[in-house]
Amino acid sequence: MTAGAGVVLRRERLHSSLGSPAMGSINFLNEVMGRFPDALSFAPGAPHISFFDQIDVPRHIDRYLRHLTEDRGLKPDQAERLLYQYGPSRGLIGDLVAGALRTDQGIDVPPESVVITVGCQEAMLLALRALAAGPTDLVAVVNPCFVGLSGAAGLLGVDLVPVDDTDDGIDFAQLDDVCRAAREAGRRIRALYVAPDFSNPSGGFLGLADRHRLLDVAAREDFLLLEDNAYAFTARQPGALPPLKALPGGERVVHLGTFAKVCMPGARVGYVVADQRVQDASGRTGLLADELATLKSMVTVNTSPIAQAVVGGILLEHRGSLASVVSAKAALYQRNLRLLLDALESALGPGTGAPAGVSWNRPRGGFFVRVRLPVPADERLLERSAREFGVLWTPMSHFYLGSGGDYQLRLACSYLDPDAIKEGVARLARFLHAVCPS
Amino acid sequence: MTAGAGVVLRRERLHSSLGSPAMGSINFLNEVMGRFPDALSFAPGAPHISFFDQIDVPRHIDRYLRHLTEDRGLKPDQAERLLYQYGPSRGLIGDLVAGALRTDQGIDVPPESVVITVGCQEAMLLALRALAAGPTDLVAVVNPCFVGLSGAAGLLGVDLVPVDDTDDGIDFAQLDDVCRAAREAGRRIRALYVAPDFSNPSGGFLGLADRHRLLDVAAREDFLLLEDNAYAFTARQPGALPPLKALPGGERVVHLGTFAKVCMPGARVGYVVADQRVQDASGRTGLLADELATLKSMVTVNTSPIAQAVVGGILLEHRGSLASVVSAKAALYQRNLRLLLDALESALGPGTGAPAGVSWNRPRGGFFVRVRLPVPADERLLERSAREFGVLWTPMSHFYLGSGGDYQLRLACSYLDPDAIKEGVARLARFLHAVCPS
Repeated sequence: MTAGAGVVLRRERLHSSLGSPAMGSINFLNEVMGRFPDALSFAPGAPHISFFDQIDVPRHIDRYLRHLTEDRGLKPDQAERLLYQYGPSRGLIGDLVAGALRTDQGIDVPPESVVITVGCQEAMLLALRALAAGPTDLVAVVNPCFVGLSGAAGLLGVDLVPVDDTDDGIDFAQLDDVCRAAREAGRRIRALYVAPDFSNPSGGFLGLADRHRLLDVAAREDFLLLEDNAYAFTARQPGALPPLKALPGGERVVHLGTFAKVCMPGARVGYVVADQRVQDASGRTGLLADELATLKSMVTVNTSPIAQAVVGGILLEHRGSLASVVSAKAALYQRNLRLLLDALESALGPGTGAPAGVSWNRPRGGFFVRVRLPVPADERLLERSAREFGVLWTPMSHFYLGSGGDYQLRLACSYLDPDAIKEGVARLARFLHAVCPS
Repeated sequence: MTAGAGVVLRRERLHSSLGSPAMGSINFLNEVMGRFPDALSFAPGAPHISFFDQIDVPRHIDRYLRHLTEDRGLKPDQAERLLYQYGPSRGLIGDLVAGALRTDQGIDVPPESVVITVGCQEAMLLALRALAAGPTDLVAVVNPCFVGLSGAAGLLGVDLVPVDDTDDGIDFAQLDDVCRAAREAGRRIRALYVAPDFSNPSGGFLGLADRHRLLDVAAREDFLLLEDNAYAFTARQPGALPPLKALPGGERVVHLGTFAKVCMPGARVGYVVADQRVQDASGRTGLLADELATLKSMVTVNTSPIAQAVVGGILLEHRGSLASVVSAKAALYQRNLRLLLDALESALGPGTGAPAGVSWNRPRGGFFVRVRLPVPADERLLERSAREFGVLWTPMSHFYLGSGGDYQLRLACSYLDPDAIKEGVARLARFLHAVCPS
């Protein structure tokens, strides 16, 4: 740090999480998207804009205010004050969220076990912070892993340990090894982060037997499960599975969710369900949710009550259940996923003369498909894909802890329209023909 | 952690920041307030509700949307999408905030040096995280210190070192000692946190000479200043001093602010100004704000664009300057402070027969007054004050790093009406007569 024309700080003297490869890669991706604005992009996992037409912020807020006066007996000025003043760190709409979780997902928890957060991102940060208490604590993650989770862990200095996913679940043998290795090193797995319903980035999915098995391992090894539920609503019906939190043994599950996809990202409202009991040295017990709310008071104080009112109003307009909202959205995302998989099949499937070594998984929900290539899907290849072929994607290596994923890319199809998906896959096919050895 | 009726976690196995005395004390204070709802409370530093009448969320959002279409050329659906979709981590209204900082506070920085945060709390967390990079790094704080700062540091594992305040500034001799001791221990002060205009909790204020002196020390010792500006708007006019950021040498200042007090807490919109340059190993430079935005993407992703639109709309309705909004609010807080100080003088000042050893400071702005007692102002005394005398306050020891402040309490007068202030002081006087040795 020296004076001169101004203050100049050395990057390597700032926190190490800023120098992580994932952060650098994300910046690179944003930069490429900025330089090639006309490229068709399979990169952002953003919700489809068609649903924004249904949003009416003043109406949603009014509906929530009416709930406060009519159902909860507040005077109109008291109700407004609740929206404008500071509020409880745990949030205002925990009761409505608990109700929706019960109706829509079979998760039966008391409202006081819900903490309303600034998106799922803050929920992850709080759960990691509470549980990873010291240098011997570890958090296991299914690898590849959502960058929001690994980023929050890096910011907090929480050590992660990877457990590979497989195309049909988790590598349970490796999970056993990881637990054993931790014990032998005098360390302890405190929690495992998993998105059982269509993970970001790989579209991974846990079958029912594997859900039970994972809950058994958690009980045997005495760790909690951090269940990320962000994409579960996109599951094909019938056939959707209950979340881990709703299964026997679910008391070991801290359930993380968001209204970003089912309502809108712009409200920045998520939640964490933590009904585990916490006992202090004097024997008094409270809920883990209480501890997370305390931590939240040191991160964001509370989630904007105005934003909570928007989401609360939407929940109330649908009589406390988002099932009807979600089914229309799930149908669109299912359609997009089918279009993407069909287009890949037509362009690059068997009998198309596609380059050898190109393959992909076939998720039954979510926003993402993983494609494997015979060449490294690195930043240089992405730049060429953008410049010469007008199509963007995300290198899967961004999502791997340490090394891995070098020959894979992620396609997101959530925010695209059908024509864009088809044209994007056509460009992707031309690109792959050009860069893969024939 | 054992099974049984459910999962029970041991508190001491959760993160240590949850076991800090400050967290325990705050929980105790909330509990006391809940148990004695009829007590007059000098505890919460909340804004006065009278200004909430001026809030009209739909109108503010409309105004911001109109700005996007009329001034920035977006189509209406593009403008709405900006509010509902994910957005940039640095936020949407950095330009408006930079404009207001220039007009209202003489802080001249480019919009790209502003990151919009979820209140000042997140701004503090991000600044601490970026700068306190490793185990040898320290952050100095003027002690007593806002619990939001010490809480965020505890959550991040950032080591703080106290520098005592004095009734008219900072103990500069101690600051020199602290810097020397750090060097000798092979450590380094990376930043000093200070609220030059009416600190929470003690109403501390830095005169102009001390502001210059502090900037000189920062330059000489090569650390940054984290300037908390939350209460500066309450300064008596004329006579308000420029913020550190607007003074020569201000390039060493990371400026932290919030719209909680000048607009409303419920929007949860704050900001951090970080125009320092950051150079990486390859010589490329960016702004510290860029790094803070990257960290923010791992904490809350982005601040709710809807909440930003509310604040942006208010700024636009006042042509980009909050001076007129602020002057009415400042007048009310000045009135409250004067009423509180006058009532203390009448009830406990010289010639009133008040107990010896009761004294207080006389801040010229802010929300808080510090009272010194001849007896420990601990939790037991607070409970008695609430139960027998119907008046609540905050033990000042909550705000001290380590030990200190045992014989002090904090009075907040911001949200009270005149009659409540007078009645509260009358109760406080009766309480002090009862508990202090005569």
